[in-house]
Amino acid sequence: MSKRVEIYDTTLRDGTQSEDVNFTIADKVKIAEALYDFGVRYIEGGWPGSNPRDIGFFKAVKGSSVPDDHIAAFGSTRRAKRTCDNDENIQALLEVEVPNLTIFGKTWDLHVTEALKIELDQNLELINDSLSYLKTKVDRAFYDAEHFFDGYKANKEYALRTLKAAMDAKADCIILCDTNGGTMPAEIGSIIDEVRKVTGDYPLGIHCHNDSDCAVANSVIAVKHGIVHVQGTVNGYGERCGNANIMSVIPNLQLKYGYECVPVDKLKNLRTVSRYINELGNLKHNIHQPYVGRSAFAHKGGVHVSAIMKNSSTYEHIEPELVGNRQRVLLSDLSGKSNLIYKAKDFGLDVDSSDPKINAVVERLKELENKGFQFEGAEASFELLMRKTMGTFTPFFDSISYRVIDEMNTNMGSPLAEATVMIKVDGEQEHTAAAGNGPVNAIDNAIRKALLNFYPNLKDMELVDYKVRILTTGTGTEAVTRVLVESKDTDGTWGTVGVATNIVDASYQALMDSIEYKLLKDKEKE
Amino acid sequence: MSKRVEIYDTTLRDGTQSEDVNFTIADKVKIAEALYDFGVRYIEGGWPGSNPRDIGFFKAVKGSSVPDDHIAAFGSTRRAKRTCDNDENIQALLEVEVPNLTIFGKTWDLHVTEALKIELDQNLELINDSLSYLKTKVDRAFYDAEHFFDGYKANKEYALRTLKAAMDAKADCIILCDTNGGTMPAEIGSIIDEVRKVTGDYPLGIHCHNDSDCAVANSVIAVKHGIVHVQGTVNGYGERCGNANIMSVIPNLQLKYGYECVPVDKLKNLRTVSRYINELGNLKHNIHQPYVGRSAFAHKGGVHVSAIMKNSSTYEHIEPELVGNRQRVLLSDLSGKSNLIYKAKDFGLDVDSSDPKINAVVERLKELENKGFQFEGAEASFELLMRKTMGTFTPFFDSISYRVIDEMNTNMGSPLAEATVMIKVDGEQEHTAAAGNGPVNAIDNAIRKALLNFYPNLKDMELVDYKVRILTTGTGTEAVTRVLVESKDTDGTWGTVGVATNIVDASYQALMDSIEYKLLKDKEKE
Repeated sequence: MSKRVEIYDTTLRDGTQSEDVNFTIADKVKIAEALYDFGVRYIEGGWPGSNPRDIGFFKAVKGSSVPDDHIAAFGSTRRAKRTCDNDENIQALLEVEVPNLTIFGKTWDLHVTEALKIELDQNLELINDSLSYLKTKVDRAFYDAEHFFDGYKANKEYALRTLKAAMDAKADCIILCDTNGGTMPAEIGSIIDEVRKVTGDYPLGIHCHNDSDCAVANSVIAVKHGIVHVQGTVNGYGERCGNANIMSVIPNLQLKYGYECVPVDKLKNLRTVSRYINELGNLKHNIHQPYVGRSAFAHKGGVHVSAIMKNSSTYEHIEPELVGNRQRVLLSDLSGKSNLIYKAKDFGLDVDSSDPKINAVVERLKELENKGFQFEGAEASFELLMRKTMGTFTPFFDSISYRVIDEMNTNMGSPLAEATVMIKVDGEQEHTAAAGNGPVNAIDNAIRKALLNFYPNLKDMELVDYKVRILTTGTGTEAVTRVLVESKDTDGTWGTVGVATNIVDASYQALMDSIEYKLLKDKEKE
Repeated sequence: MSKRVEIYDTTLRDGTQSEDVNFTIADKVKIAEALYDFGVRYIEGGWPGSNPRDIGFFKAVKGSSVPDDHIAAFGSTRRAKRTCDNDENIQALLEVEVPNLTIFGKTWDLHVTEALKIELDQNLELINDSLSYLKTKVDRAFYDAEHFFDGYKANKEYALRTLKAAMDAKADCIILCDTNGGTMPAEIGSIIDEVRKVTGDYPLGIHCHNDSDCAVANSVIAVKHGIVHVQGTVNGYGERCGNANIMSVIPNLQLKYGYECVPVDKLKNLRTVSRYINELGNLKHNIHQPYVGRSAFAHKGGVHVSAIMKNSSTYEHIEPELVGNRQRVLLSDLSGKSNLIYKAKDFGLDVDSSDPKINAVVERLKELENKGFQFEGAEASFELLMRKTMGTFTPFFDSISYRVIDEMNTNMGSPLAEATVMIKVDGEQEHTAAAGNGPVNAIDNAIRKALLNFYPNLKDMELVDYKVRILTTGTGTEAVTRVLVESKDTDGTWGTVGVATNIVDASYQALMDSIEYKLLKDKEKE
């Protein structure tokens, strides 16, 4: 019999409190579908009483693939001067017609007297009355004990009485909230132990915020102390420093302790779910994110690399495939020939460690790294370098010349960047010009224009990121420049690099590699 | 009597194992200086035996403001077939001539037999012998017990014997390492309790990795269980998912538990240190980062906002000022004015809080921050902005126009960058041209050439650093470029900023500010 923990996702409600998170209703429905497919038990869609836009979601999700039973709505206890029947907030909750409702109430005596400005006993009535009412209307009513841990530390006896009020109303689960995110992992377990002396086997949940960088740890500790329901958000979105990241909580509980949070065969979709929801939110992927990040199983140090090639458990806490991720070996001045062979195999190149061409690649690599090249994040350039050095690359075009002019004067509203480019494909010459937002964008536009006649597939390729690093300090604008370009098409993303004293030249190299890589991959597909 | 915990920073060694972290030697020295100023006890500079580039750092740091006593170097136990006297790694450690050395050794029996391929007892000798040897040569020798927690779980008895070998050699501290980052917060305390039954009061340290999203929590728990030395990195840089983030560990221990990690009056520099080191590494600031992030004390929800305006502790776990951060209310940002007045006084401007011009500066600042301007590291631009908005700045010259051409073709050995610039000083026009290594350098050369006739003091000014960051604002895909320029003369250094879609334009703004600031300061001196 495997132990179960209920995952209650609040990405669509608490997650959208984040400064940089903003989903359309259509996005929210897609996210709900992705979470349901992934096996998340409850998906909180919004706060109908506080945000009218959320009402649109509850309508829209009814036409989706997500069964009603998995959708929850959020609100608060009724106001002191109203009955539940005429409290707008409570009624707004019922109007969205979902079977699961969560309301929050005050635990901290200070908030009752200072924010609500009511008597302590009256707050107990609000909690009990609101939950009792909702219990007659829907399948499940959950209770979020706001500021539970701060309230407990301020007035333990009163905090426990608020929980008792929710228990008496037969709330389906009582969730202990670390609303301000200030609770330390060394105290959370002992507080929960004390609570359970009073609540016994009553189902308890946990809702953590990450203000002390401990939200995931606190959630895991809570489960080890008997909590059966965990609230959190995908990728830890949320106000301030975010909520507990369920992309970390789920694999921690499932892989380290054997709890079932999502069906066993679904865990391998973890990385895909994380990336997909980042994409919908137009948020950048954190390469270092535990379990799902691109670097989560990436090895750079030579000691580590030679060890993982013998036995991957030596420097990996889990098998990356369990969460849909994979092992990567990075190229850097710390490593050597064994990394290269690993990479070559990754690229599908048939390479023997005794092949003298491998030494030529090592030499070329050292030479470029001394110049300031860096192939982490630019694996496409590295693959091209490897193929070119080993003689397995046929050029798609020749670059003849470029020229770019940037101009600004007091008669102009904004500066002008204009580029001309000359290239040759199979002896045929193309000479074009284009404008752009800046010199690099202008050259990029001109090259594509020149090549598009020969390679129409370049149309579906776009630049997604462009990074510039000045390498030698102390020489100001004469310094060596490294440019990293990230491109994407419908199949995925790839990175390329260029290094030169001239930033335009460095950018040109990275752009050229990016285009050559795209053409190479498309040719391989044929 | 306040309890103390030693902070041992490994940003410059373990931090550089991160896929996207790459510091020049000059950057590393600046980081060491910043960490020393912040009050960090030990700064690990690198691994001389593994990375020849690190040796350069140890040479360079001797000329810095950081006393030797705070610098540490990292290495491993001697190899099985060598004595310490002829082991390259051990000797490389001694050659960098620092008083603190840390070596790692194997705890996990599997690694001893599989990776080192030696007998278990022989590994104990390596540990004891290497540490005993180093103890005769330097002030302090620390021992990193690699894979301690995994090793302990695999073979408790052997893991404890490895610690005993280090204790017998009188290592100054024994650091328990969660090398793979897989240890759960619910088990770390009990394992340390078991260890301490054997080690008693022997000083123990902790070194956590973040693969399970628990590195900060595990470090804090370890301290509550008697650990006195914490290793980690600034902003959690490090291989895979990073190391324990000391920007979170320090305030957790200091503000929540009253441990002294850095001097009490230094904690308010936390945010500045975090940002500064991100800037040096050209790494993006994580707005949600606990304690130091721009959003860490930002409130969006209406309930929260009205509550914090009454009492900030209602939704903030600490006072943001304690770590140099500030409360922000999104959409209706009312704060900032007092900061501005503080800054104005800093610049020697006589400003009254009731002066309506202060509001104009607040408005202008908001407008620029929305465009992507950032004035950390660019205070010279901020001072110019303030003076210009308040009407206390007299221009030294007018910029009329610039044009820059970058050209490359197959007949040229390297690309050509040529700039023309037109400026006016007191009605007198100057039109010059200059070449450069790239478009920005060419413009820089041309402007100076044009101005030197009027302001010969520009001769002793030079650009020392130039950083480019591509920002993507909002939901759009249009890239905005931010350029930070650092300049110096005989009196000191100053930073300026420019933001535009066109990189040349952004650079031009930063260069202009840099020159104007120099002319302003020289005039003030007269």
